[in-house]
Amino acid sequence: MFQAKLKSETLKSVVDVVSTLIDEAKFKIDANGLSLKAVDPAHVAMIDLHIDKAAFEQFSANDTELGLDLDKLRDVLRLSKSGDIIEMRQDEERNRLVITVGNVTRRMNLVSTDGMADPKVPNLTLAAKISVAIEELQRGIKAAESISDHISLNANPEGFEMISEGDTDMVSLKLPKDLLVSLDCKDAIRSLFPMDYFSNMIRAIPIGTVLVINLGNDLPVRLDFEIAGGKGKVKYLLAPRIEND
Amino acid sequence: MFQAKLKSETLKSVVDVVSTLIDEAKFKIDANGLSLKAVDPAHVAMIDLHIDKAAFEQFSANDTELGLDLDKLRDVLRLSKSGDIIEMRQDEERNRLVITVGNVTRRMNLVSTDGMADPKVPNLTLAAKISVAIEELQRGIKAAESISDHISLNANPEGFEMISEGDTDMVSLKLPKDLLVSLDCKDAIRSLFPMDYFSNMIRAIPIGTVLVINLGNDLPVRLDFEIAGGKGKVKYLLAPRIEND
Amino acid sequence: MFQAKLKSETLKSVVDVVSTLIDEAKFKIDANGLSLKAVDPAHVAMIDLHIDKAAFEQFSANDTELGLDLDKLRDVLRLSKSGDIIEMRQDEERNRLVITVGNVTRRMNLVSTDGMADPKVPNLTLAAKISVAIEELQRGIKAAESISDHISLNANPEGFEMISEGDTDMVSLKLPKDLLVSLDCKDAIRSLFPMDYFSNMIRAIPIGTVLVINLGNDLPVRLDFEIAGGKGKVKYLLAPRIEND
Repeated sequence: MFQAKLKSETLKSVVDVVSTLIDEAKFKIDANGLSLKAVDPAHVAMIDLHIDKAAFEQFSANDTELGLDLDKLRDVLRLSKSGDIIEMRQDEERNRLVITVGNVTRRMNLVSTDGMADPKVPNLTLAAKISVAIEELQRGIKAAESISDHISLNANPEGFEMISEGDTDMVSLKLPKDLLVSLDCKDAIRSLFPMDYFSNMIRAIPIGTVLVINLGNDLPVRLDFEIAGGKGKVKYLLAPRIEND
Repeated sequence: MFQAKLKSETLKSVVDVVSTLIDEAKFKIDANGLSLKAVDPAHVAMIDLHIDKAAFEQFSANDTELGLDLDKLRDVLRLSKSGDIIEMRQDEERNRLVITVGNVTRRMNLVSTDGMADPKVPNLTLAAKISVAIEELQRGIKAAESISDHISLNANPEGFEMISEGDTDMVSLKLPKDLLVSLDCKDAIRSLFPMDYFSNMIRAIPIGTVLVINLGNDLPVRLDFEIAGGKGKVKYLLAPRIEND
Repeated sequence: MFQAKLKSETLKSVVDVVSTLIDEAKFKIDANGLSLKAVDPAHVAMIDLHIDKAAFEQFSANDTELGLDLDKLRDVLRLSKSGDIIEMRQDEERNRLVITVGNVTRRMNLVSTDGMADPKVPNLTLAAKISVAIEELQRGIKAAESISDHISLNANPEGFEMISEGDTDMVSLKLPKDLLVSLDCKDAIRSLFPMDYFSNMIRAIPIGTVLVINLGNDLPVRLDFEIAGGKGKVKYLLAPRIEND
């Protein structure tokens, strides 16, 4: 059983961060809230999301699972303005979700979750931890996208740097320590990542967010951030690209 | 003979509501104003429009006919800002229309009206009459478009409902009596219509308009509304889709 | 050697007016500023541009040449907001340009200028000189574009007129003397030009500019205007189309 009301902004931030990696999602719901663990089809990136029931205007649920087509949720969002309350109700008998926004009711069949795996989130030890306002990265990523299909993330005790280098051109965004929210880094650290995945993740994160980048040497990066006013927590994991020398 | 001045907003609302159904129009003009009756190429919908001479800033005409390409009128509108005065003058000798906006003069050949029929607007007795702010419907229609290629309009003494139902999904916009401007309906009434036509009509109607929906059981719907500050009257007729049970 | 700082608006106006005619540009730089003379690939139009060093926030240079891909400069502009300062530095050793906007550094290889000609700007005697606010022409050109692939510019002692005439339609923009900034014209003058070139030039000129049109009879037109607050001077030359009677 699942019945809840939430602000359209909250649903929008969930749809944005999840649809970066997958088209259909299996949300697990229990009395405490809603969660999702999923891997993208190419097995390069992972999302681990939890939205506490306190992020909802109203929430009542027993253990259940919802298979949802994210494009259809986006259609619902197009109907609503910021501040609108969206009501969701699982119709277990007919295996569908009924969504109400103002006078509009949208009913959608649930998607089968049979083939959807339950990925294990790996426990990584990552040497550097960089906290930064997402806006700083969004500006830099725009400049970097056309240069190359990979991007290197670099940290040292003085600051953080993203570098994208092509055959003839290079873009670098350098953030010295004083432009970061915080920096915890003892040695020089560097990993290389696929540009498209990293760029899509950075763009999906709502402005106003402080992003925590957990970085190692040729290891996956873990991006931690909060949505829904701190009542939702998201982790993105992205596998590194191994460089050929 | 035809010579007139009108506000660009007035011309825009005429072009918007007419071009929903046809590309070229035969406007009939007499000393009282301008009128048009036309059927779309597939003979599914009809428009009956009359603009009183009082809607114009200046108007002088004898009985005449103008065959106009609506895309060219739209080009003229792109030139003008809201509040601009557009001057039109028929050049009978050379069979063309001369339009002036500010310092720009646009001359266009008239389109032959030989093949354009003069449809008779059928006299329908429709049981229900629903008056509603167009904005209410425009929001609902956006949600309904992707669901199905038809839409049902329903009325009963309690209110009005639009329903679009596909194989797996459904959208309904329910407007109880108190959200309508007025409702005159004794029994439950329902007709089904092609989505694309209905949606294009609803979208073409200017915001701020009160729309009167005249609805029967498996009968055409007639949409009545005013443009040009009440000095223009428009009727859309749309044929029903007959359901296969 | 070249090292300079300039406002992003200044760089934007240079990129806009130059990229109308060419994709890659050879800028000549000396202690007084930056200049460019170039012909479009079809040899129909020419640009002659000079930006004084006073247009820069900071400028230090010896005689040098920079071959630049204008699309890459446009990418840099996308990164910056109005008011941002852009820093440019030639790296002579590695034959590249290093551009810095805020925390972002963009490095680009210079383009070879070997094949780029140094066109001579012809010395024309043109009988009429029309000064006009660019906005007047931009509105008219929008109306004229769809009518024909050429446009005639006409001047006489009473005013200026642009006319575009197709098989069935005509657009004219008539600016009597009192709507011009100034008019110096003794006899009736007329030349015909290719629409696409003339339209692209008119659209590339920043709003707020007073354009000086130097016009003759079946002669090239020269468009003179200033950018960068009067510290940059641009001349466009456009060859006439000879009419077949």
